[in-house]
Amino acid sequence: MKKQLYIVKIGGNCIDNPNELGPFLENFARLPASKILIHGGGKIATQISQKLGIVPKLVEGRRITSKEELEVVTMVYAGLINKKIVATLQSKNCNALGLSGADANTILAKKRPVKTIDYGFVGDIEEINTEIIELLLQKNTIPVFSAITHDKKSVLLNTNADTIASSLAVALSQNYETTLIYCFEKKGVLKDTEDENSIISTLKFQKYEELKKQEIIYKGMIPKLDNCFDALQKGVQKVIISNIDFIKNKDLPHTEILL
Amino acid sequence: MKKQLYIVKIGGNCIDNPNELGPFLENFARLPASKILIHGGGKIATQISQKLGIVPKLVEGRRITSKEELEVVTMVYAGLINKKIVATLQSKNCNALGLSGADANTILAKKRPVKTIDYGFVGDIEEINTEIIELLLQKNTIPVFSAITHDKKSVLLNTNADTIASSLAVALSQNYETTLIYCFEKKGVLKDTEDENSIISTLKFQKYEELKKQEIIYKGMIPKLDNCFDALQKGVQKVIISNIDFIKNKDLPHTEILL
Repeated sequence: MKKQLYIVKIGGNCIDNPNELGPFLENFARLPASKILIHGGGKIATQISQKLGIVPKLVEGRRITSKEELEVVTMVYAGLINKKIVATLQSKNCNALGLSGADANTILAKKRPVKTIDYGFVGDIEEINTEIIELLLQKNTIPVFSAITHDKKSVLLNTNADTIASSLAVALSQNYETTLIYCFEKKGVLKDTEDENSIISTLKFQKYEELKKQEIIYKGMIPKLDNCFDALQKGVQKVIISNIDFIKNKDLPHTEILL
Repeated sequence: MKKQLYIVKIGGNCIDNPNELGPFLENFARLPASKILIHGGGKIATQISQKLGIVPKLVEGRRITSKEELEVVTMVYAGLINKKIVATLQSKNCNALGLSGADANTILAKKRPVKTIDYGFVGDIEEINTEIIELLLQKNTIPVFSAITHDKKSVLLNTNADTIASSLAVALSQNYETTLIYCFEKKGVLKDTEDENSIISTLKFQKYEELKKQEIIYKGMIPKLDNCFDALQKGVQKVIISNIDFIKNKDLPHTEILL
């Protein structure tokens, strides 16, 4: 039987809030199985960009990563946030080790080709190299990934943290019984965005298509859910969307994504 | 016979200059043995601190690391510089993996106690944990250390990169035939600071004591050389001080430190 592995992604809202991040990391540290954490960036990069006089550019809600912005996200995601999380997990006796996709060439990406929009230094994942990741897991060392990858031509790339989580889950599901958990600000996918408790407990692909047509699922939830279904289609055993409390108590409300 | 290991420390001057850093990393990547790189910070952290409106405090030539400064050095050393070096080494087919001392608890430090001066968030090394480092070396993965450590109570600490290099060399000399190389801006320790070519080819401890008394060796060279002698006393096989060209050609002028 394959060994169990949890791949947990936490979003920016959680990172920005010490009252959420602390308890989340406490619960993550206590998860009894092998595990990997992937973290987004939150508002800190935007705040530091502003202080440095860099004007953030957004196109269709997505940040364009200029050379200056890339330096800021590299500093903030792979430096400040990643090392703070690692040091906090270490204090909770969780032997964390922070990584970017450049480290040990774990996540190889390609600069997104310019079609209508030039996203700048944004990477689309091409390859996951699991050898060092699996070696660390075998030694009970917990990889903590920031959302920075590279192209193996010395260029670092800003990469969607949800996609990093699903790509890692797919690659590792070869050798592990993998559960992918997206923690975000809500308890799950909502039937009614006005009602925080209208959680869809299981979401199948056909239902997802319907809800998209009805515009009940929209905006940022679409790429997140696309990542979920993609992971399931490519062999990930279980995919969950919930808030940070789910890590503590799996009986709490959540959405399980099913094919 | 023990396997050979090079532990190479590059200073801030090299990091600040792309015309030096590129060729250095090219030569480091080509070193045929197991190797570890430790990098300092250079002026980038000071520049970013200034842009962020943080006024750097120096006492007796040493930077005091306030909470705000610690955040900047964590971003710059463990994020920006570390990941740029890793991505560059990856492009040269050197399977680099960036680490701070918090990662896998590799370098445990203690916040420096306040005596006459409060250095702020500065760490003195207490313990090196080599298990994960040796595992990486066995897999031909090259650790690249930034000068950030932790206290295992969730606090990150700014730590002298020279001391990190010597402490790693001492710990790893148990299982490796270790050569510790300090690359700085000069070709070696100088007999005459006015004459760049007056390199002392071998420096023994007794001679070092004499040169200190004569004030031929002074200021920043003293803690650097103390680290060198400390490493030799604790079992490191060879200690060299030179500039970055030495990595390319070991016949070039350099200072070998001897007990």
